Amino acid sequence: MTAENHPPATDAENLSRRAPKGIVILGSTGSIGTQTLDVVRALSGRFRVVGLAAGSRLDVLAEQIAEFKPRMVWSLDNPTLANVCGDAVVTPMEQMVAEPSVDHVMVATTGRAGLGPTLEAIRHGKEVALCNKEVIVMAGELIANAAREHHAPILPVDSEPSAIWQCLQGEDQPVRKLIITASGGPFRDSDLASTATVTPAQALKHPTWVMGRKITIDSSTLMNKAFEVIESRWLFSVPFDRIEVVIHPQSVIHSMVEFADGSVKGQMGPPDMRLPIQYAMCYPERVANAAIPRFNPLNFPELTFRPLDPDRYPCFATATEAGRKGQTYPAVLSAADEEAVHLFLAGRIGFNDIHGIVANVLDRHEPSPGTTVDDILEADAWARRQVETRIGAL
Amino acid sequence: MTAENHPPATDAENLSRRAPKGIVILGSTGSIGTQTLDVVRALSGRFRVVGLAAGSRLDVLAEQIAEFKPRMVWSLDNPTLANVCGDAVVTPMEQMVAEPSVDHVMVATTGRAGLGPTLEAIRHGKEVALCNKEVIVMAGELIANAAREHHAPILPVDSEPSAIWQCLQGEDQPVRKLIITASGGPFRDSDLASTATVTPAQALKHPTWVMGRKITIDSSTLMNKAFEVIESRWLFSVPFDRIEVVIHPQSVIHSMVEFADGSVKGQMGPPDMRLPIQYAMCYPERVANAAIPRFNPLNFPELTFRPLDPDRYPCFATATEAGRKGQTYPAVLSAADEEAVHLFLAGRIGFNDIHGIVANVLDRHEPSPGTTVDDILEADAWARRQVETRIGAL
Repeated sequence: MTAENHPPATDAENLSRRAPKGIVILGSTGSIGTQTLDVVRALSGRFRVVGLAAGSRLDVLAEQIAEFKPRMVWSLDNPTLANVCGDAVVTPMEQMVAEPSVDHVMVATTGRAGLGPTLEAIRHGKEVALCNKEVIVMAGELIANAAREHHAPILPVDSEPSAIWQCLQGEDQPVRKLIITASGGPFRDSDLASTATVTPAQALKHPTWVMGRKITIDSSTLMNKAFEVIESRWLFSVPFDRIEVVIHPQSVIHSMVEFADGSVKGQMGPPDMRLPIQYAMCYPERVANAAIPRFNPLNFPELTFRPLDPDRYPCFATATEAGRKGQTYPAVLSAADEEAVHLFLAGRIGFNDIHGIVANVLDRHEPSPGTTVDDILEADAWARRQVETRIGAL
Repeated sequence: MTAENHPPATDAENLSRRAPKGIVILGSTGSIGTQTLDVVRALSGRFRVVGLAAGSRLDVLAEQIAEFKPRMVWSLDNPTLANVCGDAVVTPMEQMVAEPSVDHVMVATTGRAGLGPTLEAIRHGKEVALCNKEVIVMAGELIANAAREHHAPILPVDSEPSAIWQCLQGEDQPVRKLIITASGGPFRDSDLASTATVTPAQALKHPTWVMGRKITIDSSTLMNKAFEVIESRWLFSVPFDRIEVVIHPQSVIHSMVEFADGSVKGQMGPPDMRLPIQYAMCYPERVANAAIPRFNPLNFPELTFRPLDPDRYPCFATATEAGRKGQTYPAVLSAADEEAVHLFLAGRIGFNDIHGIVANVLDRHEPSPGTTVDDILEADAWARRQVETRIGAL
């Protein structure tokens, strides 16, 4: 017959059939980090938390250290880390990921912070689950080349690239198109003129996903969707002109792949990040986890699609154009966006200024090839200075 | 990276990279048969038509013989076949499929006619593309065991099992559920009381698919969907309690698979049988075919799901129950349904009598194990006699 027997999924399958995988979580106190630890907790025995690195939420990190007893810890808030780290050794992220006992690195930082540790993990041939998409946006080609050279698997975590990855399983076949879905964010139906007065609180109310602050704002501008296009271009080696985005307000079909024969596969599920997180952690195994809600099509009686309106989401075209141009443009894009979003969240600029600032900085950029980390970091620093200068002049 | 480079699909990929596959088409003048020949025509050089077998549409068969020049032909209308067969040798189906030059057998007959040739093809280790679902309904276990014994791949052709098969590619992982979609047929929204007076012409108007007459009536009663449940149980070795059906009027998501981790994959496409036909013929290759319409989610702005209403479709529960009970019940189901549908199409019984007759014959059946062809054919003949007797007594 066409398929082997598929035994029922039982609790026994949740038991590890091998030594626990040693994992490091960079950004352990953020939204993805804490959900990664939810998975570790639910799939008891499969993972050993070797290292945890966090930003400045030391109280949460202290609890995680007490529960998971990592050997290595790190925090941006280094001076007070010593008070909470117990027996764990304070270890910089680049050093933490290179440790021989580390099999899997979950990069759940935000912004540029993940670039150095990601490249270091790749150079040591670790399995890298990459949730920090700014890293692959700013340095996609560099990361793709390093991963090829060091045979380090880069596993997508974000639900859309994860959906594409899942649809590509077992398909050593030509891809005609990737179709990435976008919820459209909180302003998909609002009056266009009203976006000028949007407040951070309004932009932080995402219709379907609960996420960190930076990515929620990027979702409301569709900057995040352009980042996923750039990410998919590098993760799946599919050229930009074969990647499309469609608005799908229910966020149920996470993305689709059209193959050469016209067949389309899509991956579906309730909007819950633990599923793609767990898939990357357990890959290629699929493990039952009672904590993850099940998908029933009857709970989603209507799935809709509509085209992306470029006037509503000017960031999308600006950002994908930067991706197409390559060189150091994507690094400038990512840095300028990160700065602009912080300014918006701080109440210092309006919602529409995010696009204005990013587009202006990209316009004035004189690119370099972007083939070295120095190139990338220099472009990143240049872009941030440009944003500051522009704001200082306001 | 996670996936190898996916080169664009080009015309060059349509050129055969190996010797043409020798194929036999059983039921070549029917809906699936002619579409199979459309694929042969479109993918020039990939297939050599070695044998064609048809029912009684000799005019169509004559044209096919002239175009494809098969070495072997067969027709139910044997006496006049000699007038149209040219250089081809009249060969019974069982003998045709066993020929060494045959690699692939497309079983696109309807009803019980395909059973013997299917088993013979399996015994000779041929690749069998099975579109005649009555064959696997009546003798699922027998066929599954024979296929295993003779290492003969059974490839689904029907769009729903094909969707499941496609979703299972590369997933050597436990399946939690198969979700088969059903359009609901032409009477999904009609007043329940009105089904008593449905005419054959009304029942033959399928909302989304253009198919043969028998399968179109089976689709209007959802008998066809129960057959797909039974087919999937044997093709994919998934127990009945893990197979669900959901009404999806647009017939865009052809079916879905839920894996152990809760992830759901679905296969999508416009309702065009040439895609699953071609997939089975070319498997595992996916080949560009300009004749197959492309799927664009924006052309299907709204996909809906609703539960199957058991009062509207009494055949569904009756038929799946026969599948669950096994033994010779499924053979009786298939035979009684085939007879009842013919009686309905001939205007001799009402639409609701299809269920009445099938349920009554199943009720009175004294099963045998159904482990031999004789068992199956005896149950089949018994069921047909029962229908005749019942009708004669009306």
